[in-house]
Amino acid sequence: MRACERKAMTPPVKVAVVGASGYSGEELVRLLLGHPRVELAALTSRQYAGQTLAQVFPKFASHPRSKEVRLSEPNAELLAKAAQIVFLALPHGVAVAFAAPLLDLGCQVIDLSADFRLKSAALYREFYGHDHPAPALLEKSVYGLPELNRLQIKQAALIASPGCYPTSILPPIIPLLKEGLIKSTGIIADSLSGVSGAGRKAEPECLFVECNESVRPYGIPKHRHLSEIEEQLTAVAGAPVIIQFTPHLVPINRGIVSTLYLAPEKHFAGQSEAAALHEQIAACYSGAYGNEPFVRLLPAGALPDTKNVAGTNVIEIAWRLDPRTGRLIVMSALDNLTKGASGQAVQSMNILCDFPETTGLAW
Amino acid sequence: MRACERKAMTPPVKVAVVGASGYSGEELVRLLLGHPRVELAALTSRQYAGQTLAQVFPKFASHPRSKEVRLSEPNAELLAKAAQIVFLALPHGVAVAFAAPLLDLGCQVIDLSADFRLKSAALYREFYGHDHPAPALLEKSVYGLPELNRLQIKQAALIASPGCYPTSILPPIIPLLKEGLIKSTGIIADSLSGVSGAGRKAEPECLFVECNESVRPYGIPKHRHLSEIEEQLTAVAGAPVIIQFTPHLVPINRGIVSTLYLAPEKHFAGQSEAAALHEQIAACYSGAYGNEPFVRLLPAGALPDTKNVAGTNVIEIAWRLDPRTGRLIVMSALDNLTKGASGQAVQSMNILCDFPETTGLAW
Amino acid sequence: MRACERKAMTPPVKVAVVGASGYSGEELVRLLLGHPRVELAALTSRQYAGQTLAQVFPKFASHPRSKEVRLSEPNAELLAKAAQIVFLALPHGVAVAFAAPLLDLGCQVIDLSADFRLKSAALYREFYGHDHPAPALLEKSVYGLPELNRLQIKQAALIASPGCYPTSILPPIIPLLKEGLIKSTGIIADSLSGVSGAGRKAEPECLFVECNESVRPYGIPKHRHLSEIEEQLTAVAGAPVIIQFTPHLVPINRGIVSTLYLAPEKHFAGQSEAAALHEQIAACYSGAYGNEPFVRLLPAGALPDTKNVAGTNVIEIAWRLDPRTGRLIVMSALDNLTKGASGQAVQSMNILCDFPETTGLAW
Amino acid sequence: MRACERKAMTPPVKVAVVGASGYSGEELVRLLLGHPRVELAALTSRQYAGQTLAQVFPKFASHPRSKEVRLSEPNAELLAKAAQIVFLALPHGVAVAFAAPLLDLGCQVIDLSADFRLKSAALYREFYGHDHPAPALLEKSVYGLPELNRLQIKQAALIASPGCYPTSILPPIIPLLKEGLIKSTGIIADSLSGVSGAGRKAEPECLFVECNESVRPYGIPKHRHLSEIEEQLTAVAGAPVIIQFTPHLVPINRGIVSTLYLAPEKHFAGQSEAAALHEQIAACYSGAYGNEPFVRLLPAGALPDTKNVAGTNVIEIAWRLDPRTGRLIVMSALDNLTKGASGQAVQSMNILCDFPETTGLAW
Repeated sequence: MRACERKAMTPPVKVAVVGASGYSGEELVRLLLGHPRVELAALTSRQYAGQTLAQVFPKFASHPRSKEVRLSEPNAELLAKAAQIVFLALPHGVAVAFAAPLLDLGCQVIDLSADFRLKSAALYREFYGHDHPAPALLEKSVYGLPELNRLQIKQAALIASPGCYPTSILPPIIPLLKEGLIKSTGIIADSLSGVSGAGRKAEPECLFVECNESVRPYGIPKHRHLSEIEEQLTAVAGAPVIIQFTPHLVPINRGIVSTLYLAPEKHFAGQSEAAALHEQIAACYSGAYGNEPFVRLLPAGALPDTKNVAGTNVIEIAWRLDPRTGRLIVMSALDNLTKGASGQAVQSMNILCDFPETTGLAW
Repeated sequence: MRACERKAMTPPVKVAVVGASGYSGEELVRLLLGHPRVELAALTSRQYAGQTLAQVFPKFASHPRSKEVRLSEPNAELLAKAAQIVFLALPHGVAVAFAAPLLDLGCQVIDLSADFRLKSAALYREFYGHDHPAPALLEKSVYGLPELNRLQIKQAALIASPGCYPTSILPPIIPLLKEGLIKSTGIIADSLSGVSGAGRKAEPECLFVECNESVRPYGIPKHRHLSEIEEQLTAVAGAPVIIQFTPHLVPINRGIVSTLYLAPEKHFAGQSEAAALHEQIAACYSGAYGNEPFVRLLPAGALPDTKNVAGTNVIEIAWRLDPRTGRLIVMSALDNLTKGASGQAVQSMNILCDFPETTGLAW
Repeated sequence: MRACERKAMTPPVKVAVVGASGYSGEELVRLLLGHPRVELAALTSRQYAGQTLAQVFPKFASHPRSKEVRLSEPNAELLAKAAQIVFLALPHGVAVAFAAPLLDLGCQVIDLSADFRLKSAALYREFYGHDHPAPALLEKSVYGLPELNRLQIKQAALIASPGCYPTSILPPIIPLLKEGLIKSTGIIADSLSGVSGAGRKAEPECLFVECNESVRPYGIPKHRHLSEIEEQLTAVAGAPVIIQFTPHLVPINRGIVSTLYLAPEKHFAGQSEAAALHEQIAACYSGAYGNEPFVRLLPAGALPDTKNVAGTNVIEIAWRLDPRTGRLIVMSALDNLTKGASGQAVQSMNILCDFPETTGLAW
Repeated sequence: MRACERKAMTPPVKVAVVGASGYSGEELVRLLLGHPRVELAALTSRQYAGQTLAQVFPKFASHPRSKEVRLSEPNAELLAKAAQIVFLALPHGVAVAFAAPLLDLGCQVIDLSADFRLKSAALYREFYGHDHPAPALLEKSVYGLPELNRLQIKQAALIASPGCYPTSILPPIIPLLKEGLIKSTGIIADSLSGVSGAGRKAEPECLFVECNESVRPYGIPKHRHLSEIEEQLTAVAGAPVIIQFTPHLVPINRGIVSTLYLAPEKHFAGQSEAAALHEQIAACYSGAYGNEPFVRLLPAGALPDTKNVAGTNVIEIAWRLDPRTGRLIVMSALDNLTKGASGQAVQSMNILCDFPETTGLAW
């Protein structure tokens, strides 16, 4: 039986998006409308309940289903009846209220908020300032970084899909840390984010005039996303990892660049040492990501650029050893709404559903 | 036999792109790489000959074929051996030198330049300042606007694919003119174009610093594209049509908005006259485009926006009757590289190959 | 006595800005802080009352007075005690409540809102949907376009400073209309505005992500600013003038381009007729604006560009006769916050105070 | 004698700009045209020789002198006759050919290129790949950072005005280093630059379409500007300083943000240690820059933003101690064409001429 036949015979998986009118909700809708193996069975939005997809998002109005699909008030029971897999594209702190009932009703939940990304309830309290409302779910959830966690994702009922900053930082660091090529101390992540990362919030600092011709750091030195980055690195290193993380806002719609400052375990003063280390790092990345469809290890001479990943689920990675400083500089670029949010969530869904992992995701 | 089976059995059509490194060449590559029914058999670029697709366009480097496809020097005989359909994405005046030999060698040619868009060699001379080098081909070529010319495209050997300005202006006007709802005199097209419309030319006026925070008219009052717009309108009206066309450059990558000032044939001073005319125009557009997959007639209250068509082959159209001035204002938006260039060329190819017209073109 | 001595001896004029935290308020602050003949005696802002200028606007924090000047709650009596001239940079409909008491208290008022720009209370009702709350003031107010109304401004107690669209449209048209060179019928103004024109409103359509890579018409066909444009043109023409006005939003911070479609009174079919008309128009503009410091009549071959007027009080004007269509195309560019709002208001203040008109306004 | 009288009596200093058509040349022209104490006596540009200032820069066409000042071919003898102070706004490697003859002819030279910024000819060779053509001038030149080098600038014949990156990096670091508050090792400077930093070069990577929606690192790890940064820091530290410098390109016209990662000499684990260190750093910056008109030490809670310094000669500085990592993060923002190039050069000129240092430079 040829692939196309099997595909034609399998009924589509029914999926729902809760919080469809934010930027990551909109990106989920875009990807799921174009996904050949799923049916967008329910969309919710408090603000736009009752309107069709075509009315809320004119850009989707040429899709055959845009005039029949209507956004509705979010309701766990109706969602569970309509869909097998539910994506939560809600603000942090709101997702948790939907996840528990949906799980109880038998849905698989892919949450794009930060609500279930931490394992440690204590860490959650430290960074979010209050107790986690459903700590049992923290244990149950799987951190949805497919390149590093594929097997657990396959079995998960609740996937905590990582945010844009962690996705730009963890994949470049983890293989090096795992193989002991870098120290777990002194790590710096300097990140530049496009404005959609702030969500579709009508706040003055997100206005066009305030962002255009503006470049600025923010949230320094203790941004909330630090917690999930450090928890993941700590798990890999087997010892507490504390990093420096400095986000900046740059005037693009989509994209994150992270520049990572790392200390190789070995000194590489001489040329032959440098060459050896170079080979080890290249082998490490190639081993980890050589076959990953969404990790683009850039060739010698190339550096990441957000415009080369916009709208795709790809993360670009490049690196340089600096013999003058003894550091390893790793740079990554991704689209914060795709690989940094909704594309990655769809990638996890593909794993969960046993679809080819690239299904519905542009190269 | 189900569609998917037939598709699996049909060998892909081999296509080539001459001039693959310009912006419309790059957009053709993007669309053709994702097209399920064609094989990108040859790509040419004088500047990048010998390099792989992945090297020239890092953004395509995650496509499975990007490391095997190489750009080559353009050579009509090799192209004709490699491909059945050849897209010419060359500067105006250069395409003509490739079209003739490729046609002689049996290829079907889809030309994205202005070289074959006029029927009249005299008009060509007036607007381009020299005689057309292959006037016989002017007669043979078909103006590749699928919504208006589908049948001729199906039979064509040489398709002159319209440019971005004409595509934003002709489809909104032609149905009204055909049905006699507007006068053929006094038409004004005021257009705003993104910077990619100027091509990938390293000229000072296209530098970031010169375009960012800049809005400016140019090429006024006698832009070259006037000739093809007027020739098409004249053919529809059955009498010479002269229009006013004022292009402006705006700081976006992709997109054109055209605002068209039209004079209804009938006065509509009273409310009932206005209502009647409103109905006629709505019926006219609905009849012309109601079933067109790539024409989006906007609902009441909505207006076109380039961000809603970016990366798609869609043209958005909205219109308003102004009882104060007696005018009909029609507004359109499209992506100058997709519906305004490469997407439209692929749409013509789909017609030529008897593929469903939306194949490989995002909604 | 040399100018510099007189200047040194004259005490500065005390001025106040009501509504200092919006974009035109901020631009007023910028211009008045740098103005050598005035003292910024009071600033009001409900939102930021109690904070210093340096706190509210970090960009002004290096000005010597930024740490001593505090924003306060608006209060007419306190304002009248502090300042001789009061600028109102308030939303439409709010300014009127401050103008009356301030005038009663003996201040001169320069209002940047639309509240006093119309002479006709009936027209106000038609366009704003309710009766004008202080119709007597409509008669008293002077339309503050210095190039056309200098003498009245000099005597005015209440100046209604024109908005950005009218300022981009009226000066290019009025001299031609006055001299009978163009018809008063069929005028079209197609305008492109930067996003600051919408004010510092935290509304979704003004977010960076919604404006960047977006070009779109809006407010078509009956924008409110039509009323003041038409009233002014009607006064000049001596007969009712109705125009077509189509605003568009473009992704720049500052700037407006207006493209005006005008019909010359005389036909100019032949070359000599065209040459004669060309000379008449050139003479008309030169006579009207040849000595105006803030009107830049562009030389042959040049066209307006917002980047050439950003931050200045200059309006650029260029024009083309089109022998093919018989039309005269006039194009203008200005900075919507400077010549289109606050710079123009300062220009009026200079006239009012008998300062050289360019004082404090960059060339 | 009052200031205004003295000013009126002092004849203006005659200045020239060599290379007036690049971005820093244009910014010099803007500043010098508005400077009350100088006369722009000569402007050179190979490309535009013979044209007036108004023709080359329409944006300056409303300045009274723009139609009389003409750009000319560069010629040292004519320049020396026309002007006392000559600004060189030429590409690196070209300035050196003009500096020597101009100095011999008695001019004072302010060079904006990198040609005279290093003291060490060996370092020059390492970073530029060839011997310095006039090593004697390296010794003679003064590094023109007014906040750190005011006295030497006052006496200088040849001022090497620092570039945009060094100006964003050195002033935030040097006072800390001088006072021994930070280690001289392990310094990282992560910088984000607007596109005008690349100059007005018609190269593909500077095109609007290539920069808009693009954020990307470049020149990593050994950018040329490292040499002058390290030489200056080495001089202060009294021991060789090697830093990490990672520039990125961001889509704004003007502006640089640098984020500096520094290691305090003292650990500050406890709260009281942190408070003490905090006070020391605050005192250090306040002592160094509290009275500097162009250094803006941001108040607690504020962070730098390029939009707050655009068009001004101000550098904004903010800093944070991170008790979690033990690091001091210092962030700066400036306009790369003003404080990072031409404004700083004018500031040096003011010192050289004994003008108040802020003359002609907006706050």
